[in-house]
Amino acid sequence: MGNVDYEHPSGMNVPRVGVPPPQPFLKSLKYSLKETFFPDDPLRRFKNKPTSKRLVLVLQYFFPIFEWAPQYTVQFLKSDLIAGITIASLAIPQGISYAKLANLPPILGLYSSFIPPLIYAMMGSSRDLAVGTVAVGSLLMGSMLSSEVNPNHNPNLFLHLAFTSTFFAGVFQASLGLFRLGFIVDFLSHATIVGFMGGAATVVCLQQLKSILALHHFTHDADIVSVMRSVFTQTHQWRWESAVLGVCFIFFLLLTRFISKRQPKFFWVSAMAPLTSVILGTLLVYFTHAENHGVQVIGELKKGLNPPSITDLVFVSPYMSTAIKTGLVVGIIGLAEGIAVGRSFAMFKNYHIDGNKEMIAIGTMNIVGSFTSCYLTTGPFSRSAVNYNAGCKTAASNIVMSIAVMVTLLCLTPLFHYTPLVVLSAIIVSAMLGLIDYEAAIHLWKIDKFDFVVCISAYIGVVFGSVEIGLVIAVALSLLRLLLFIARPRTFVLGNIPNSLIYRNIEQYPNANHVPGILILQIDAPIYFANASYLRERITRWIDEEEDRIKVTCEASLQYVIMVMTAIGNIDTSGISMLEEVKKIADRRGLQLVLVNPGSEVMKKLNKSKFQVDIGQKWMYLTVAEAVEACNFMVHSCKPNQSKDEPEDWNHV
Amino acid sequence: MGNVDYEHPSGMNVPRVGVPPPQPFLKSLKYSLKETFFPDDPLRRFKNKPTSKRLVLVLQYFFPIFEWAPQYTVQFLKSDLIAGITIASLAIPQGISYAKLANLPPILGLYSSFIPPLIYAMMGSSRDLAVGTVAVGSLLMGSMLSSEVNPNHNPNLFLHLAFTSTFFAGVFQASLGLFRLGFIVDFLSHATIVGFMGGAATVVCLQQLKSILALHHFTHDADIVSVMRSVFTQTHQWRWESAVLGVCFIFFLLLTRFISKRQPKFFWVSAMAPLTSVILGTLLVYFTHAENHGVQVIGELKKGLNPPSITDLVFVSPYMSTAIKTGLVVGIIGLAEGIAVGRSFAMFKNYHIDGNKEMIAIGTMNIVGSFTSCYLTTGPFSRSAVNYNAGCKTAASNIVMSIAVMVTLLCLTPLFHYTPLVVLSAIIVSAMLGLIDYEAAIHLWKIDKFDFVVCISAYIGVVFGSVEIGLVIAVALSLLRLLLFIARPRTFVLGNIPNSLIYRNIEQYPNANHVPGILILQIDAPIYFANASYLRERITRWIDEEEDRIKVTCEASLQYVIMVMTAIGNIDTSGISMLEEVKKIADRRGLQLVLVNPGSEVMKKLNKSKFQVDIGQKWMYLTVAEAVEACNFMVHSCKPNQSKDEPEDWNHV
Repeated sequence: MGNVDYEHPSGMNVPRVGVPPPQPFLKSLKYSLKETFFPDDPLRRFKNKPTSKRLVLVLQYFFPIFEWAPQYTVQFLKSDLIAGITIASLAIPQGISYAKLANLPPILGLYSSFIPPLIYAMMGSSRDLAVGTVAVGSLLMGSMLSSEVNPNHNPNLFLHLAFTSTFFAGVFQASLGLFRLGFIVDFLSHATIVGFMGGAATVVCLQQLKSILALHHFTHDADIVSVMRSVFTQTHQWRWESAVLGVCFIFFLLLTRFISKRQPKFFWVSAMAPLTSVILGTLLVYFTHAENHGVQVIGELKKGLNPPSITDLVFVSPYMSTAIKTGLVVGIIGLAEGIAVGRSFAMFKNYHIDGNKEMIAIGTMNIVGSFTSCYLTTGPFSRSAVNYNAGCKTAASNIVMSIAVMVTLLCLTPLFHYTPLVVLSAIIVSAMLGLIDYEAAIHLWKIDKFDFVVCISAYIGVVFGSVEIGLVIAVALSLLRLLLFIARPRTFVLGNIPNSLIYRNIEQYPNANHVPGILILQIDAPIYFANASYLRERITRWIDEEEDRIKVTCEASLQYVIMVMTAIGNIDTSGISMLEEVKKIADRRGLQLVLVNPGSEVMKKLNKSKFQVDIGQKWMYLTVAEAVEACNFMVHSCKPNQSKDEPEDWNHV
Repeated sequence: MGNVDYEHPSGMNVPRVGVPPPQPFLKSLKYSLKETFFPDDPLRRFKNKPTSKRLVLVLQYFFPIFEWAPQYTVQFLKSDLIAGITIASLAIPQGISYAKLANLPPILGLYSSFIPPLIYAMMGSSRDLAVGTVAVGSLLMGSMLSSEVNPNHNPNLFLHLAFTSTFFAGVFQASLGLFRLGFIVDFLSHATIVGFMGGAATVVCLQQLKSILALHHFTHDADIVSVMRSVFTQTHQWRWESAVLGVCFIFFLLLTRFISKRQPKFFWVSAMAPLTSVILGTLLVYFTHAENHGVQVIGELKKGLNPPSITDLVFVSPYMSTAIKTGLVVGIIGLAEGIAVGRSFAMFKNYHIDGNKEMIAIGTMNIVGSFTSCYLTTGPFSRSAVNYNAGCKTAASNIVMSIAVMVTLLCLTPLFHYTPLVVLSAIIVSAMLGLIDYEAAIHLWKIDKFDFVVCISAYIGVVFGSVEIGLVIAVALSLLRLLLFIARPRTFVLGNIPNSLIYRNIEQYPNANHVPGILILQIDAPIYFANASYLRERITRWIDEEEDRIKVTCEASLQYVIMVMTAIGNIDTSGISMLEEVKKIADRRGLQLVLVNPGSEVMKKLNKSKFQVDIGQKWMYLTVAEAVEACNFMVHSCKPNQSKDEPEDWNHV
């Protein structure tokens, strides 16, 4: 069946609905697999290149440093140096704070800002991502592992489990990238992430009440109800000295954030503020001996670089499953943040980021990290934003930060002995408040109510339940929406736009007119098992409603049902049975079913099933206008039931 | 923004893209909920009716017997009497056989053919469904409960658990119907059911090897590997007498099936065959005393009607969860079979079945059944087909069957004492072989490869794993397909069909021509978070490929990208961000983005976001032809980059 024009009933020559040329099964399978796993065609750049050049390209693909290093200039170095030192001043206090959030020794936060940035600098393709630990990931890892092992009773096992889950997170991340499954991250929608991050930030802030009020006993649960109960049942334990200090530092940090936001050139004010707070707080405690008056301090930090931890990984069965589960969850959360951040900055600077490649880079960074006493790292938003504002040019700013942290580890750790915990809490709180993006939530409400519901469910789930519950609820709701789109597709009636051959939705174009005797329906989704029954019922109802309407308006009686298939991307066997049933229903009521513009996938399957023969090539048109014209011609020349007896006549195949 | 025509750049008056009139949030929410839960508009028939008439309609809605009973005629009674007696002769041996399959006392099969058909006759809306127990449901219930309680060691508890899970199955089925969640059953696609039923039939046949070979010890697992190991490790225990009897009866039953299939008027040959086999087998054993030569018999069946079992329901925690889980699984399988069967026969006879109403009927039947010593019942295909062929007119044939079973229970049970088990097995095997629908599987392969994969996975999962594993794999694959459709939508390039203003997919219409300087893309699915990243990459790649193609053919350079949005049913906030990014990418390359025919949902959201202002009403057209004409006009009159500076000029808003 070629694409030969055939004679229209009205005598006009019109093009026929095309059946796409048949493709061998293997070829179409290959095409589908390619579109699913290699939509960005990563092998494109290797085409028509000699082998040696290809090897270089492969090396550059996995290690982008070989791409940018040869073009590195002194000008770049200057910019990266400034940016690197700026982010280091943020990384050191944040690293220590977040490690405490994960119930891990504070020194791990510094270790994690030393090795992983070096790996990323070699393998990462983002020029703006500043690598380090993140608050939400730390909290999540801490709470998931705490439910299995008590970090106070068994700190060593807890530490080893943290390395193990970092290892699994890395393996998981790298394999997603290697197996081109990066699109799994896309299933965390923007709305989910806004709600989830806001909820996690709220929970993290609530956790800080422990240090700010200098409480010794605190709940291990993270939900708002447990925390509030824990805080208000021990009001007599509150230490005002600590609280005053905390509030002052939060105010100071928020003020610097406000200044930097108003005047972007003063980005360094807010970037330096955490380190300034740490220095001020430390000096204050050192000179006033506030540690004897209820202000808790960090205590001793071990000097020296990361000790190896490869032998600490726990592969013993009772804890293994916890480590794997934690690794999967924190791994995907880490990826979502890292890739979203990388992509947004790439968009600003007009360069491209390959999601799968980034996953391999972030995964490798965590695998190597788990061998060298680091825990989960990714590209945190706050630090990357500072990096970007500080004018970084390449991933070399990560190397600079790494060197600064190394110097700190080698010489400066004793200086943190008197750093008050409340200052770290203030740093966390001020960073977290920026993550509660209520403006984005309002924007979601305005544009898409369902997205807003997803966002708020994630928020409430995290704040009142747990981080996992919030995540599961939000992902389930998002998937439900996709399934609902398929299960309950929109169908609508088309009408003729006056003085044209255009037929459009009469709800969207109120001036479009019904065509007498013809019902034109458009279906807005593929016809699959999940909606076949619904569509059958809905189409029947459209016919009923149209007949009711005609009774009232006394128009010509209904004779044709035109189904516009433009928007039906695909059809399965249940869908074809549904079409057959609709055809039977139409026949029974004395109506003729007409199909318009079935797409290539649909046409392929109609062609293989007997439905196409059933309905006849005569009742398939390329445009609504042609179909309507043919129907009108039939109405005026003969009854459709008569013409039904001679369908072969028109079939010039 | 109304739908006023505006001036086309070429000077022609063309209609504008319409923004649907804004709807209050509550109204559109109500509309969505109605479409989701009440697509068949069940309240339609109550419109404009007086209250008394409405009450009658409500009664008739829940008890269709009040609808058909007043019109019942003697002619109907004759037909229903013949059909009812025919299905009773099938129901008695099948009931006993299937109860053994569920590890339950054989008498339960008879009880279950007495009360539930009476309930269904009052509440069911199908005229052809013959109610009774089903092989797959029995096997599933038996194997799920056996994994918790051993039916040989603790037969009483096992029996009570069977009643309890029947109760939960009924509650679940009725609530699905009451809460209008019937569409959940639609997620079991035709392909899933074909594979699952075939697998279950294979497993059931394998189980019959126990009775046919008269083995005393047999595995409790249902998978093919365990069964084969069990059979071939005890070859010395095989009893040839039993095997010969079994093979003969299977041959006899298949022969009668073959005759009935060739000559539909001899339907009674195969319908009567099971009862004939039972009578023949019983007489044979009685006169030859074969029970002493390795042929196992049923033994004593208690005389009398169903004892009440409402006090036997187990609501104690350790078993409760098993009962609920079993109830859910067998409940949904029962519904899927009952509703599919009811719908297919309704299609033959041209009447309508309301899925939600059927669920309430089947659910109530199982709840009442669980109070009266019955286990899971639904509408089995084989029995309903016999009912249909025997010429039943209404659900009264179920009442006739029920009375026949009652008479059996009251007087005839002692006659079954010498019935050999091997005859029951032969009845099961011959019924099950009809369920292995290899022709349907071949049909799936021909039309839709993915459906075939789903079908075969279900089959293999059931045969090599377990019934639950097969079901989970098939449903997961079906859902994955829906998600993949959304995650990887088709995009294609449109070309102009010669001598027309029609633009279609150039793969489907190889004679369609590229329009010089313009890339026309169509996207075939809604733009959601799950595909936003993919589409951004894919669109970029289309532009790259088009520019590569132009380089080779030396055509005019690319200046416009037209995105045809006809098939984009909906968009979420991630989708709108994606469009903004594509706009930026196009701008960066000096290309102008043009949108064609966004639908009402998409237009609503574009209108609320700033994207519509961004792109300008000027670059949105109702048809591809208009957009192409406008682009061509621009190319010839001025450069697009110049016109970009004066976009307000065309915007007669």
